[in-house]
Amino acid sequence: MYYGIDIGGTTAKIGCFKDDKLIKSWIIDMRVNTVDEMVLNIINSIKANDDNVLGIGLDCPGFIVNDQVITSPNLHFLDGINLKQAFLKHIDTKVKVINDANCHALGEAIYNKLDNIVFITLGTGVGGGYIVDGKVFEGFNGAFMEIGHMHVDDFYNFRCGCGQVGCLETVCGQKGVINLVNYYKNKLNTKLELDYTVRDVFDLARVNDELAFKVFEVFTDKLGLALANTAILLNPKTIIIGGGISKAGDFLLNAIKRNFTKYACQSVVNTDIILASLGNDAGMYGAYYLVK
Amino acid sequence: MYYGIDIGGTTAKIGCFKDDKLIKSWIIDMRVNTVDEMVLNIINSIKANDDNVLGIGLDCPGFIVNDQVITSPNLHFLDGINLKQAFLKHIDTKVKVINDANCHALGEAIYNKLDNIVFITLGTGVGGGYIVDGKVFEGFNGAFMEIGHMHVDDFYNFRCGCGQVGCLETVCGQKGVINLVNYYKNKLNTKLELDYTVRDVFDLARVNDELAFKVFEVFTDKLGLALANTAILLNPKTIIIGGGISKAGDFLLNAIKRNFTKYACQSVVNTDIILASLGNDAGMYGAYYLVK
Repeated sequence: MYYGIDIGGTTAKIGCFKDDKLIKSWIIDMRVNTVDEMVLNIINSIKANDDNVLGIGLDCPGFIVNDQVITSPNLHFLDGINLKQAFLKHIDTKVKVINDANCHALGEAIYNKLDNIVFITLGTGVGGGYIVDGKVFEGFNGAFMEIGHMHVDDFYNFRCGCGQVGCLETVCGQKGVINLVNYYKNKLNTKLELDYTVRDVFDLARVNDELAFKVFEVFTDKLGLALANTAILLNPKTIIIGGGISKAGDFLLNAIKRNFTKYACQSVVNTDIILASLGNDAGMYGAYYLVK
Repeated sequence: MYYGIDIGGTTAKIGCFKDDKLIKSWIIDMRVNTVDEMVLNIINSIKANDDNVLGIGLDCPGFIVNDQVITSPNLHFLDGINLKQAFLKHIDTKVKVINDANCHALGEAIYNKLDNIVFITLGTGVGGGYIVDGKVFEGFNGAFMEIGHMHVDDFYNFRCGCGQVGCLETVCGQKGVINLVNYYKNKLNTKLELDYTVRDVFDLARVNDELAFKVFEVFTDKLGLALANTAILLNPKTIIIGGGISKAGDFLLNAIKRNFTKYACQSVVNTDIILASLGNDAGMYGAYYLVK
């Protein structure tokens, strides 16, 4: 059978596919110190399930070009490693590797029978992918669609993990919410508690909590701006919003659409904007489609 | 021989190519009222030169997908016309049609033996193209790389021809220079005369004329921002600056690089930025490469 594997910072999700269907999935620990340890853990886990492995697709956070990890900020032991070759040392099958956000994009596109899409994932940070003619784009050094680092803000000037100020993910995604809550917590009234989640902020925004509504407003305004500028460059048929935060549903989607329209020019203003449908399985599906 | 034809609002430039070299070029009048009239003018002009036409490549302003002009703001009689079919009615040869900025991008890329490039043209407005694996991208409805309409300004709020405010070409390109000069002419000292050109503005900016320097500063700041955000999405190896205004040379190029670095994040900050080399011939070369 085919395997689609979504590698994260602490765990890897392994999906087993037959006839284009995810028939089984499980999670393994990723707290390893070397590439070989990681590769053998994955291969042993697959071989315990199946002795006829037709192919392995993998996604992984970081900058990746042609199966080679250039850098992976959360999995530094992969820096400079050709992950495909690392697998081929231990198993004789088809192997393909891409960046995680690109892989989620591919999963959502093919599963939903869509092409010419921009995918954006709202999680801890903000990532993205672009699929046209069923193909993933990696860019010159693996930084294609690093939408989280588009410069969109000259007011708050929050410092980004990348070293710059004003990146989309300083005012959007979980990190952005934290920055904005900290900025406004002594300036605006709120019922938000200390151990809040992004979901709590959005729930309070719905009932017009002053602080939560302001955070939601900035988040969706800057996201609308980034997506409008992305549409002007890539001119996709559809923009798909994914990642954990997208579970906020229509409340979030409608605000994104409103802000997209504010910034988009005529030729792209009718771009479809929809929510992702595969949730946490998108990476496994994408990795499967990649190798299949 | 092969022909690369650059169609503009008032004239068309016809280039005749042999062994990858432009061996002859001439200009014909484009003030026509119908598609057939335009097509026959071009075909007759070519046939007067050569009775063995191996292929015709064409570029044309407007939104174009698969040889079909969706709309062409300056050549409305082409709206909705499949220009390839219009030629094939009158001549039996290979024909290909693309958008003018995309075509210039293709010309510069192949002529300079570069791939994975973003091309930006600074003329009356601001346009662009993207070439990877030698291919041109048109987008879902022909609006790929409409960089002139990226939203980059929330201060001046100049109205753009597209109906929006804040587009790059409201503060960049010839239109942008005119907007900025009008905005500052009663606020800042200047030696600029009434019948100025963009070149005059840049020449005065070099000698620190107060108004001209301010206009140059805003122009290059917003262009640096747009190019940094473009690099973050498309992650090209090289950005090529073309169009009439690019003749300002290193003075302009160095300012663009400085502002690009201000906004670009680590993964794309080393993108090469260079000036175009084909000048007014880029369209003819691109159209030739397209059909060849």
